[in-house]
Amino acid sequence: MTLDPADKPGADGFSLDDVRREGLMASPGTEPVAHDGTGRVELAFTVEDATGAAPARRTVRVPPGVTVFDSASWNGIAIDSTCGGHGTCHKCKVRVEGSTPISRHDVRTFSREQLDDGWRLACLVQATRDLAVDVPPLTTRPKAATVGVGRQVILRPAVQKRYVELDEPNLADQRPDLARLLEAIDDLAPKPDLHALRRLPHVLRAADYKVTAVIVDESLVDVEPGDTTDQRYAIAYDLGTTTVVATLLDVALGTPVAVASMLNKQQPYGGDVITRISATMMDPETLPRLQQAASATLVELAEQVCREGGVDPKQVYEVAVAGNATMTALVLGIDPEPLGVAPFVMSTSQPPTVLAADVGLELHPRAQVFFFPALGAYVGGDIVAGMLATGMDRDKRVRLFIDVGTNCELVISDGDRILSTAAPAGPAFEGGAIKCGMRAADGAIEVIRLHAKLDPPSAEEVAQSTPPSVEEVAQQPSRDPNPVELGVIGDVEPRGLCGSGLVDAVAELVRVGLLDASGRFIPEDQAPTVAPALADRLTKIGEERVFVLHRPHPEAAPEDCVVLSQRDVRELQFAKAAISTGWTLLLEELGLEHRDVQQVLMAGSFGSYISPAAAVRIGLVPKLPVLRIVSAGNVAGEGAKMALLSVRERAGAEALLQEVTYVELSDRPDFNDRFVDQLGF
Amino acid sequence: MTLDPADKPGADGFSLDDVRREGLMASPGTEPVAHDGTGRVELAFTVEDATGAAPARRTVRVPPGVTVFDSASWNGIAIDSTCGGHGTCHKCKVRVEGSTPISRHDVRTFSREQLDDGWRLACLVQATRDLAVDVPPLTTRPKAATVGVGRQVILRPAVQKRYVELDEPNLADQRPDLARLLEAIDDLAPKPDLHALRRLPHVLRAADYKVTAVIVDESLVDVEPGDTTDQRYAIAYDLGTTTVVATLLDVALGTPVAVASMLNKQQPYGGDVITRISATMMDPETLPRLQQAASATLVELAEQVCREGGVDPKQVYEVAVAGNATMTALVLGIDPEPLGVAPFVMSTSQPPTVLAADVGLELHPRAQVFFFPALGAYVGGDIVAGMLATGMDRDKRVRLFIDVGTNCELVISDGDRILSTAAPAGPAFEGGAIKCGMRAADGAIEVIRLHAKLDPPSAEEVAQSTPPSVEEVAQQPSRDPNPVELGVIGDVEPRGLCGSGLVDAVAELVRVGLLDASGRFIPEDQAPTVAPALADRLTKIGEERVFVLHRPHPEAAPEDCVVLSQRDVRELQFAKAAISTGWTLLLEELGLEHRDVQQVLMAGSFGSYISPAAAVRIGLVPKLPVLRIVSAGNVAGEGAKMALLSVRERAGAEALLQEVTYVELSDRPDFNDRFVDQLGF
Repeated sequence: MTLDPADKPGADGFSLDDVRREGLMASPGTEPVAHDGTGRVELAFTVEDATGAAPARRTVRVPPGVTVFDSASWNGIAIDSTCGGHGTCHKCKVRVEGSTPISRHDVRTFSREQLDDGWRLACLVQATRDLAVDVPPLTTRPKAATVGVGRQVILRPAVQKRYVELDEPNLADQRPDLARLLEAIDDLAPKPDLHALRRLPHVLRAADYKVTAVIVDESLVDVEPGDTTDQRYAIAYDLGTTTVVATLLDVALGTPVAVASMLNKQQPYGGDVITRISATMMDPETLPRLQQAASATLVELAEQVCREGGVDPKQVYEVAVAGNATMTALVLGIDPEPLGVAPFVMSTSQPPTVLAADVGLELHPRAQVFFFPALGAYVGGDIVAGMLATGMDRDKRVRLFIDVGTNCELVISDGDRILSTAAPAGPAFEGGAIKCGMRAADGAIEVIRLHAKLDPPSAEEVAQSTPPSVEEVAQQPSRDPNPVELGVIGDVEPRGLCGSGLVDAVAELVRVGLLDASGRFIPEDQAPTVAPALADRLTKIGEERVFVLHRPHPEAAPEDCVVLSQRDVRELQFAKAAISTGWTLLLEELGLEHRDVQQVLMAGSFGSYISPAAAVRIGLVPKLPVLRIVSAGNVAGEGAKMALLSVRERAGAEALLQEVTYVELSDRPDFNDRFVDQLGF
Repeated sequence: MTLDPADKPGADGFSLDDVRREGLMASPGTEPVAHDGTGRVELAFTVEDATGAAPARRTVRVPPGVTVFDSASWNGIAIDSTCGGHGTCHKCKVRVEGSTPISRHDVRTFSREQLDDGWRLACLVQATRDLAVDVPPLTTRPKAATVGVGRQVILRPAVQKRYVELDEPNLADQRPDLARLLEAIDDLAPKPDLHALRRLPHVLRAADYKVTAVIVDESLVDVEPGDTTDQRYAIAYDLGTTTVVATLLDVALGTPVAVASMLNKQQPYGGDVITRISATMMDPETLPRLQQAASATLVELAEQVCREGGVDPKQVYEVAVAGNATMTALVLGIDPEPLGVAPFVMSTSQPPTVLAADVGLELHPRAQVFFFPALGAYVGGDIVAGMLATGMDRDKRVRLFIDVGTNCELVISDGDRILSTAAPAGPAFEGGAIKCGMRAADGAIEVIRLHAKLDPPSAEEVAQSTPPSVEEVAQQPSRDPNPVELGVIGDVEPRGLCGSGLVDAVAELVRVGLLDASGRFIPEDQAPTVAPALADRLTKIGEERVFVLHRPHPEAAPEDCVVLSQRDVRELQFAKAAISTGWTLLLEELGLEHRDVQQVLMAGSFGSYISPAAAVRIGLVPKLPVLRIVSAGNVAGEGAKMALLSVRERAGAEALLQEVTYVELSDRPDFNDRFVDQLGF
């Protein structure tokens, strides 16, 4: 069995389609009650085109109870609205087939004839059954976009453009060029920067006083000839220690234009932040080199997304970067040493906005870069971005956010208080310290299903196993007599085991009984009884016991196979114990128990791909029904997009600094005891 | 007769002593009633030293009526004060010999014994007679400085430093470095810039958490190890079309450290703004070259003042530039073309603050440059700075401000309304279009006194001539039998005639009767009767009549002499007519007559050196007693200093944009008739 590699971001990048698919995957997470095994409702949209072209037809599946407006918006179908779907503007008119409840707002908006014909306000129609919906052509530009995990964002980007047609000056009207321009813009009062002023006299006169003012935040950064208001772009970066993802956004429409990802060019200096910080401490020349490497990564991705999107880099006016505290310090050229040694101190929680040129980017000469604030040295801007994308500060449910990695960040909210901490999970999830470990790249085993017996499982056996999640069902291969089914990235010969494969392998070995609760392989002589179909795979390399996951050919020696070793299991145990100790202590702080958690968000380019069932089985997350475990996707990147689409959301990210309490675990006297308690499966 | 070249700024620069002397010259201007021919009062200060060194003795002369505090402050003698001499802080205690009135504040401040001993608050003692004053040692740092024309400025520079000793971080106090620093500063909340953040982690730790925060305006620009609070410098530039003057200021003390001046390196592109603007229109490469030339001028002067002052350029944190609209546009690299062609439009009235590096200056890497705002294309930032330095918006008297040059700026205030305009005077004052014209450099004749008869003048004759001003008396040479007495810059052989010499020459020729009221030389045959001692100097070069001012040797032909030609007289007539038409129309706008003007401020590096008596005689200024005509000195440079010493004064300069009404003369239908009316003497 192999999976479509496009389902997963990795060294080869992922496409715009994947982003859209992620959006779809993420949406149900906000309404888990609505997809508790009873599936989805189907909405068939017919979207009329203002240009007279044939209407577009799109069918989407959403959890029952979602409004028609949200269902459309989450799926990139624009419905007129000036209030963003809040029931106040009365503009989101659609025609719904069949009988639909009529709201009091509908009565005030439509005639009796129209109501009989099915016209309703889309933001007030809940989709509780399959519906056919006609959407009239847009008469206004879209005002909202859906990003993150079911987050709808009213478009109010920091990048604004205003087209004006000015009177020419004369002896009776000698107003300076700038005053003439700014007095024609009634809703913004930006300060000019030197670049814009240098261009202003020439552009005004060459363009017959018909120009577009380009404003970023509170600065007038440029003036362009003619009307360029629909050309407004920005780049959102998820600046990861391992992988960096860039999304080119059309901030006027709120839509992504192109996405690209690549390995962080700092990799040669070490796989994790501590190694890179150490490198800067050894040699003062390393900091500028690391800064340069980060910069080169951002630059290459910017070139790629602009090329793919057909966008002039000079029309990219803003950048947002979500990165952990070390990545943020390094790309800004700030010495990271205090982050790496006790007491783990940041230079600042909120880096200043800098020019794109300050981090080496050649976009608009006055393009600005916004960096997400950080809660602590090990709960960085990437996590704040993730909290923004998942609405951790807005949801009344008890939710646990886990970004799994070498450093694992945990956030828990009970709808009132928000706590966060960091747990040192070690390199197991990134493939480090694992015998056949590798990154999530071509040839990596990422999904494993073991069959203990040679015969197909009985109905009883199937019933006893944990039910697979919705995603697992979608990916489930047809039954195969092979006792070890593998999902391999890139549909190639397996070469190793990535983090999600490691979790799956251990979870499956525990399930079939080849690993006991303490994490030890069972004695070799018991294996044929416990799992006859797999017994021959339990062997040794030297003195160490291993389980063979993949044999390149039937006679291959264990040394030439992809195996899981006893030590690998121990590594994973330590990692998951660190994490589960973290959320256990956070739950205790809030006076909550495991079962109180209503949603677990598995975040990050790695965490999103762990099988929920496996995560539950090994105890990485609380023991909950798998439907409460949601893959949240690349939430750091989604948060960065939100910051670019809405200054209000950006302010929300900054406000999180005050709203979230950082809990330091490393100085708790009971930490070690609790950690040991969590080691078993 | 020759004058000390140090009295006049020019190509050779002027010294700190000159600046101090200028301050002395300027002060009386604020209180003209007090020096109406009855001279000055003398104050003998004995200034005690806190270190135990012998007291310093200084004697100063001020107009009667000035307070003891102001008399001291204007002369660089610091007296304790926290209110800046406004009678509220009760700290400016001095001991005055002899009987002095006792104010009610004195009674509340001193014991009966102290009052009997002569103790008074210095800001409440008016100097109406000669006084001996004991000044105790300073117990506080100076809070105010005197600059401009009698302007006292409470020190509140944009450049601030705060020394802090911080707690070291620990696991219980992981505050970020920046928060740790800023929370220790209770009166300022600056935003960090990237430069400061990059230095912060290292400097904090290397300096044991004892550091000085450097704040400019609202930005944290640096953090320095140890206590550097008394090292705060800034540079004030008067960026003239011809001459550029730089003053290095200690903004902590409010005192100048070094002064330098040089020719603007843009000179090769033309002597006046119109020629330089035209040059940019001919060739697009000229704008960057002019920008570079301006920048090179600023850079060379910065190097010079830092070297002379023994100040590290990296401790210069701010720069203020007062320049006309064209000079400001050129140094910022903004196309000046719209300034040079009707309808004469600026790009902006208030240029943004830029980094010193943006104009090529290598000072502190985050040093900022403040540019003075401009009222119009021809009433620029230099004039706004001059208005600030002369307090045009604060004085209740009717005052006329004249900056004489190729473009002559005029400002009039009646204590309520302030009007300004520009008058195109042409190049006469700068030595252009004048047969023997030259800049005010070595060899230029700048003062002329003619004696019509060979005998010494009778007492009657002396009584009939206009009494010389205080400055003229000071400069007056001993009587000499030579009928043409010349003041020459640099004490060298005369080579030509600068602007003030031109005005003097014409004024004297009118006085002795060799020029008639229409500006024509009288017929040659009448000269021996009118002015027997000078008649042989009235001759011709070709067909043109000339007056010989200097013969290199007795037999020299007129062509080899320094002469004033009939055409030169016409040039000056046009120039003065443009100017006097300007102020005549401004006076009419305010419903005032010539005699209502209580003070005329002659400003600018040229205007300040015109003899008041000559200016009155040729009609360049209203016909007023010469004591009302005040040389205001280099007010643009003084205004730039004020902006650096006080953010409140800087805000005052920006407020002038709203307070001053610009009057456009060029489109008035009666302008030409009025101009012709003003041509005669």
